[in-house]
Amino acid sequence: MSVPKAAAPKGAVNKGRAEQLYASLSNTRQCTLSLARPLSDEDQVVQSMDDASPAKWHLAHTTWFFEAFLLSQFNERYKLFNEDFLYCFNSYYEGKGTRHPRSSRGLLTRPSATDVRAYRAHVDEALEKFFKTGSLNDEVLDIIELGINHEQQHQELLLTDILSLFASQPLRPAYTQAALSAADRFHAPGAVANDGGIVEIGHQGAGFSYDNEGPRHEVLLRPFTLTDRCVTKGEWLEFMADGGYERHEHWLSDGWAMVRQEGWRAPLYWENHEGEWRQMTLTGMRPLDPAAPVAHISYYEADAFARWAGKRLPTEFEWEIASQGLSETGRTLGSNALRPSPVGEANQNLQQMFGDVWEWTQSHYSPYPGYSQPEGAVGEYNGKFMCGQFVLKGASCVTPDGHSRATYRNFFYPHQRWQFTGLRLADN
Amino acid sequence: MSVPKAAAPKGAVNKGRAEQLYASLSNTRQCTLSLARPLSDEDQVVQSMDDASPAKWHLAHTTWFFEAFLLSQFNERYKLFNEDFLYCFNSYYEGKGTRHPRSSRGLLTRPSATDVRAYRAHVDEALEKFFKTGSLNDEVLDIIELGINHEQQHQELLLTDILSLFASQPLRPAYTQAALSAADRFHAPGAVANDGGIVEIGHQGAGFSYDNEGPRHEVLLRPFTLTDRCVTKGEWLEFMADGGYERHEHWLSDGWAMVRQEGWRAPLYWENHEGEWRQMTLTGMRPLDPAAPVAHISYYEADAFARWAGKRLPTEFEWEIASQGLSETGRTLGSNALRPSPVGEANQNLQQMFGDVWEWTQSHYSPYPGYSQPEGAVGEYNGKFMCGQFVLKGASCVTPDGHSRATYRNFFYPHQRWQFTGLRLADN
Amino acid sequence: MSVPKAAAPKGAVNKGRAEQLYASLSNTRQCTLSLARPLSDEDQVVQSMDDASPAKWHLAHTTWFFEAFLLSQFNERYKLFNEDFLYCFNSYYEGKGTRHPRSSRGLLTRPSATDVRAYRAHVDEALEKFFKTGSLNDEVLDIIELGINHEQQHQELLLTDILSLFASQPLRPAYTQAALSAADRFHAPGAVANDGGIVEIGHQGAGFSYDNEGPRHEVLLRPFTLTDRCVTKGEWLEFMADGGYERHEHWLSDGWAMVRQEGWRAPLYWENHEGEWRQMTLTGMRPLDPAAPVAHISYYEADAFARWAGKRLPTEFEWEIASQGLSETGRTLGSNALRPSPVGEANQNLQQMFGDVWEWTQSHYSPYPGYSQPEGAVGEYNGKFMCGQFVLKGASCVTPDGHSRATYRNFFYPHQRWQFTGLRLADN
Amino acid sequence: MSVPKAAAPKGAVNKGRAEQLYASLSNTRQCTLSLARPLSDEDQVVQSMDDASPAKWHLAHTTWFFEAFLLSQFNERYKLFNEDFLYCFNSYYEGKGTRHPRSSRGLLTRPSATDVRAYRAHVDEALEKFFKTGSLNDEVLDIIELGINHEQQHQELLLTDILSLFASQPLRPAYTQAALSAADRFHAPGAVANDGGIVEIGHQGAGFSYDNEGPRHEVLLRPFTLTDRCVTKGEWLEFMADGGYERHEHWLSDGWAMVRQEGWRAPLYWENHEGEWRQMTLTGMRPLDPAAPVAHISYYEADAFARWAGKRLPTEFEWEIASQGLSETGRTLGSNALRPSPVGEANQNLQQMFGDVWEWTQSHYSPYPGYSQPEGAVGEYNGKFMCGQFVLKGASCVTPDGHSRATYRNFFYPHQRWQFTGLRLADN
Repeated sequence: MSVPKAAAPKGAVNKGRAEQLYASLSNTRQCTLSLARPLSDEDQVVQSMDDASPAKWHLAHTTWFFEAFLLSQFNERYKLFNEDFLYCFNSYYEGKGTRHPRSSRGLLTRPSATDVRAYRAHVDEALEKFFKTGSLNDEVLDIIELGINHEQQHQELLLTDILSLFASQPLRPAYTQAALSAADRFHAPGAVANDGGIVEIGHQGAGFSYDNEGPRHEVLLRPFTLTDRCVTKGEWLEFMADGGYERHEHWLSDGWAMVRQEGWRAPLYWENHEGEWRQMTLTGMRPLDPAAPVAHISYYEADAFARWAGKRLPTEFEWEIASQGLSETGRTLGSNALRPSPVGEANQNLQQMFGDVWEWTQSHYSPYPGYSQPEGAVGEYNGKFMCGQFVLKGASCVTPDGHSRATYRNFFYPHQRWQFTGLRLADN
Repeated sequence: MSVPKAAAPKGAVNKGRAEQLYASLSNTRQCTLSLARPLSDEDQVVQSMDDASPAKWHLAHTTWFFEAFLLSQFNERYKLFNEDFLYCFNSYYEGKGTRHPRSSRGLLTRPSATDVRAYRAHVDEALEKFFKTGSLNDEVLDIIELGINHEQQHQELLLTDILSLFASQPLRPAYTQAALSAADRFHAPGAVANDGGIVEIGHQGAGFSYDNEGPRHEVLLRPFTLTDRCVTKGEWLEFMADGGYERHEHWLSDGWAMVRQEGWRAPLYWENHEGEWRQMTLTGMRPLDPAAPVAHISYYEADAFARWAGKRLPTEFEWEIASQGLSETGRTLGSNALRPSPVGEANQNLQQMFGDVWEWTQSHYSPYPGYSQPEGAVGEYNGKFMCGQFVLKGASCVTPDGHSRATYRNFFYPHQRWQFTGLRLADN
Repeated sequence: MSVPKAAAPKGAVNKGRAEQLYASLSNTRQCTLSLARPLSDEDQVVQSMDDASPAKWHLAHTTWFFEAFLLSQFNERYKLFNEDFLYCFNSYYEGKGTRHPRSSRGLLTRPSATDVRAYRAHVDEALEKFFKTGSLNDEVLDIIELGINHEQQHQELLLTDILSLFASQPLRPAYTQAALSAADRFHAPGAVANDGGIVEIGHQGAGFSYDNEGPRHEVLLRPFTLTDRCVTKGEWLEFMADGGYERHEHWLSDGWAMVRQEGWRAPLYWENHEGEWRQMTLTGMRPLDPAAPVAHISYYEADAFARWAGKRLPTEFEWEIASQGLSETGRTLGSNALRPSPVGEANQNLQQMFGDVWEWTQSHYSPYPGYSQPEGAVGEYNGKFMCGQFVLKGASCVTPDGHSRATYRNFFYPHQRWQFTGLRLADN
Repeated sequence: MSVPKAAAPKGAVNKGRAEQLYASLSNTRQCTLSLARPLSDEDQVVQSMDDASPAKWHLAHTTWFFEAFLLSQFNERYKLFNEDFLYCFNSYYEGKGTRHPRSSRGLLTRPSATDVRAYRAHVDEALEKFFKTGSLNDEVLDIIELGINHEQQHQELLLTDILSLFASQPLRPAYTQAALSAADRFHAPGAVANDGGIVEIGHQGAGFSYDNEGPRHEVLLRPFTLTDRCVTKGEWLEFMADGGYERHEHWLSDGWAMVRQEGWRAPLYWENHEGEWRQMTLTGMRPLDPAAPVAHISYYEADAFARWAGKRLPTEFEWEIASQGLSETGRTLGSNALRPSPVGEANQNLQQMFGDVWEWTQSHYSPYPGYSQPEGAVGEYNGKFMCGQFVLKGASCVTPDGHSRATYRNFFYPHQRWQFTGLRLADN
């Protein structure tokens, strides 16, 4: 986590920043609750697979973060809501003691959803008091800011995990009934060129960022182009029709092994009903929208598609540089679509960069030159995952508004498909 | 399922039997609901392991049975509550079409627990009407009687599955707070002798029984003795202290492999807290009661204990013959203990035969001579499981009252431990 | 192992028996070597699957038996060939110390096949000397007799394991080129009736037997019939053509799970080449011989076939009683066929009882009443396997001549298929 | 594969190059045979684990390469030695038809080792003739050169795979008895600095290289230092003594999971005998040589060691640039050591760069900018493996002499340890 270069010394109270953060914190905490509102208590307790977590767990874990890293560290009078929760709702912080095994999160019928809501209220109240009476120096505010961003990440996970759960049930329930405009046609992909050269990559200056976004450093790029929009479901159908999932020559060796082992024939959540493809979404089972970006594909599939198309995936550096000057907003959670939306008209610009789907890059998730992992449990946030994963850029239709930026580095394993992951093509 | 030799022809209405069955049905249906009452909706949705099912699933599946085998077969005007439920709540009846996979029962957050309660009410109402207006011949009454017994079996499973779930949670919640008398001392085991000879085994005559309890047939037995009570937890501690779980010579080859693979060191649900053994029960975590029968042991453990003690397990035939003349009642569900109770004083008789714990026998679960599996989906009830399992006799502390008899054949795989399973020793 | 009731006291020298045993020993040891002769050293080192062992391992392990249980116990001057071999070639005798893991037997390129042959020569020489100078009392002779029978069992395993290895190789090599008469037609199965009643089962009196064949005891049987010959491959093709492997109603629950998991569509070693079924045999890939007994089927398949045919499998007691008065010989290893031979003409008698294929019975492999396992490592021979397996009676085309008898109890798990296992039908 | 910019047109005969290549080819083919000479036929047939292959398979597969890609393509009169071999000895070339599964390579007792030697002779003879009479244009010579390099890679694998096999056997046999000088002391690591800047990376110009070494391109590097020698076993003992394998904070998340799952406590092949560490080597079981480079460590271990030491692993670019101007020779296969040798005296230079152990870099194995995979089966050589693996630089004590260069990119998965893999530290 890099922090704003505060004019005031680290230990001093920073009142303006505090007020701003408190507004953001309240908003984020409320938003999480409202995301859980369409869910029954039963929906919130179950874990669909090892990669996913129950909604209740997300609600509790994001609260645990503030209790473990802030309230019990900086507030002597803070009383733990329940000591057992420290064990139940730790995720992967080895430095924070033993923890409930990840694959057993779905067994926790107790504490109940009601208990977890009370836990949230208890911590929210303590946070409110803390803002009134605590010593709000930058060390403390940094942790709060990290906690807000941490909770925003879990908001996205809560939704992707619910989709995974609902898609695994015979009734295929809808999370919400929100309607969505559809479109049949999409413009042919255009190419936006970039000259490359020596460019600056990574975060610097004011504003929040994660530790993995720095240090800012120079990178040498060759000239490249990016397509002006994401690959659509209509294009993906062409790939499938051309034997995309049957021809080994498009695939990485590990990807081809996965195709055969898992029997992949289409993106995750696509189902074939008597010859017609439909897709399970947060708004229930739907006909495919050919003009919308394809989502729920693995890195292996993105890479295979790019080879089939005679192109390649961009590097994370190319994507970041190409996004310079663009508004860092798009169809994210606030748009209320909850699934990728149809492409707009061609307009010579890069579209869909910060919304709709996270975009796979060919960049392995590695430390930037000069990166060093922070000490202590907070240091486990990013650095220890820098092996075997790939960087995704942008944001998705379920990313909280404001929770992305050009330097943001999302990362997943190449076989994972349950996030809203898609692709954009690059060329030399 | 064998049925009473009714004087009236099969198709005729049997009014006395119908009245009796309706009372039993109402009682059973009510009892299931009351067993679920201490559970939250969250408790009811989760599946702790493949062998277990969620409580909600038990509530729905026992209802499905009446809908699938009775109402939709014999009541033209019956309207299905919800067509999807046919798929969701079939268990293993291949003859009844496709079904939701067993290991995914815990994913079903929808239909909700509320929906399932409504489903029960819908079917209960239809059953009530059916008793008033339907053609209550013996074919129909046989199915109802089977449905009652089927639901009683699931009442026991509901409790054992909840224990499995609660034992897997860090908070180790109690299903109920019911107190229980404890005792420290237990009388030395006595031996009750039997002469053997040619004996009759299996069910015959009036009263319900499952198909696997017949045909009644002759078996030749040698003289034998049974101990007058079950093996206690105190005795099991002696076995453990004598290296019972460390010395291969007591164990079957498959059992020894399981001990090493699973790291078994004590019965299931026993936990060692700083040198003292405690046990997770339906009334929460408790100190061991040395005078109560050991429970939650596998066949492998029962067999190893018997070898260590210089004895053997009884055959199912020995057990059945020895129980002749005894009352078929004991500490079952109505006693409200929910865990095995301390042994009484020695009194020259066989104690604890029909209650406390199911008793492993050395008899492989095989068809009786002349057995033939009934046709159709109901025929899948018993016969297809006659491979690799062992017969247990008696009843347990969570068996519904009246749901056992001398000829009853319970059966489980030799590695399974989550039922209330114990043992009694035999000798030549 | 039960032993002849010798007139002489246990410790006394029994010269006649000794001479007889030495001849049998020499013959058996030679026979093992000659079975390995068609194999290269490479063929002898590889293990095709966990259930099978390398030929070299069989050669060494049968030698180890004499070293571990006889020479190093009863011959003070005996010098171990190589101390490491004690570890390398122990099979499952927990009482004989640690041992090389079963699944890693195929890694042992050292000791070499040449070393193993030298090991055999070393032990053979020591055995010869021992017969000349040792104290040949009955305790010692019992061990030698057990060693001979043990080695005969491994002769059969050596051949079945080589078939498994050769069938797993792309070149499908033949172990031998021996020709074999074939036949297209087979007589319709006849039924041989038996009255049942109280019968005596198990071994008694002179002649070798394993411990699991006793004690001899009375069993009560109902009248039954057995078909006069084994089920043929031609009949198996009818079962397949009638959807035998696709219709769940014929199958045990565990068997049906195995069919779907493993994709079974025919017996092991059957391969379909462009619509025609062939079979891999010890004489290479061959057309199916419809008149020969089907082999390489699991218990599950045998049971399913019997249900499909409207019959059942015999119990081990029925088989044993029905075989009384028959010659205990047949098409075994000495016949040199190395695969089951066509059925002869119908002649009112039971044919193919002691040869061609081992016949599955419906009897779970359990101890006889009064059985108790011998003490020490030799006691691990049989008793500890009495769980989850089924008894097979008779002998197969690769059983050494003289290595079967009416009371013999072979046993395998219900899913195992790599032995020469077939079936005969029973009826009430 | 990039090829020398030949002055002559592609189709023209290149006599000088042909002569040189033939000498190299003969030498390489001879060398492979001589590496197999200390092995029995039994040693050559067995596969110790999925990652490894039998020696016989290496001998055959390297021969298959010339048959499949050269002789059967460019020599009309060439007669296949045996059509089955095409299937048996294909490795992973999906474009070359079906192939024997990798994990079953150890089942191939047939073809025999003798057959494989005859196969080699047959192909060698055909190659000799081809050099005399064939049309030796550059297309053909490129394939031959690739075949030579391919075979050299398999020479190294043959030795690492034999070490894996011998280490898995209870007798721990030695591949060779060659003695080796040992040393107890090693100089403290020095640091060699480099200024970085815009540098050229990748192969260009004359001389063989693999396709993955290009295109040559510019990279921007920051100043860095490398230690002047590899990390030694003595230093690794310090890491272990300091709890290196017990403290999660040094480890990548995936690495820590592997440590716990596999129970790693030391490098592969280290064994603790009563408190003293020894190591299994190609010269048998040996005391640890503290002055020699540590080998047989995974990427996870290399990374954890570097963090523990307060350093990091170099990037592949740093390593390549630092090696400029150094001789590309070192303790490789020709030195006959067969295990890493003790460090020399400090001398201000980088030592052990091209020999002793392959050095893990922090660089994910990715395509260079502008890389495109060649068409056809030869194109499967490198590109399809560019996911999830890490680049290693240098060479090892079992790399054939001349088979490395500054631009060489070796690659393995981060959990793999059976190669001679070590590390050198970097710092900013």
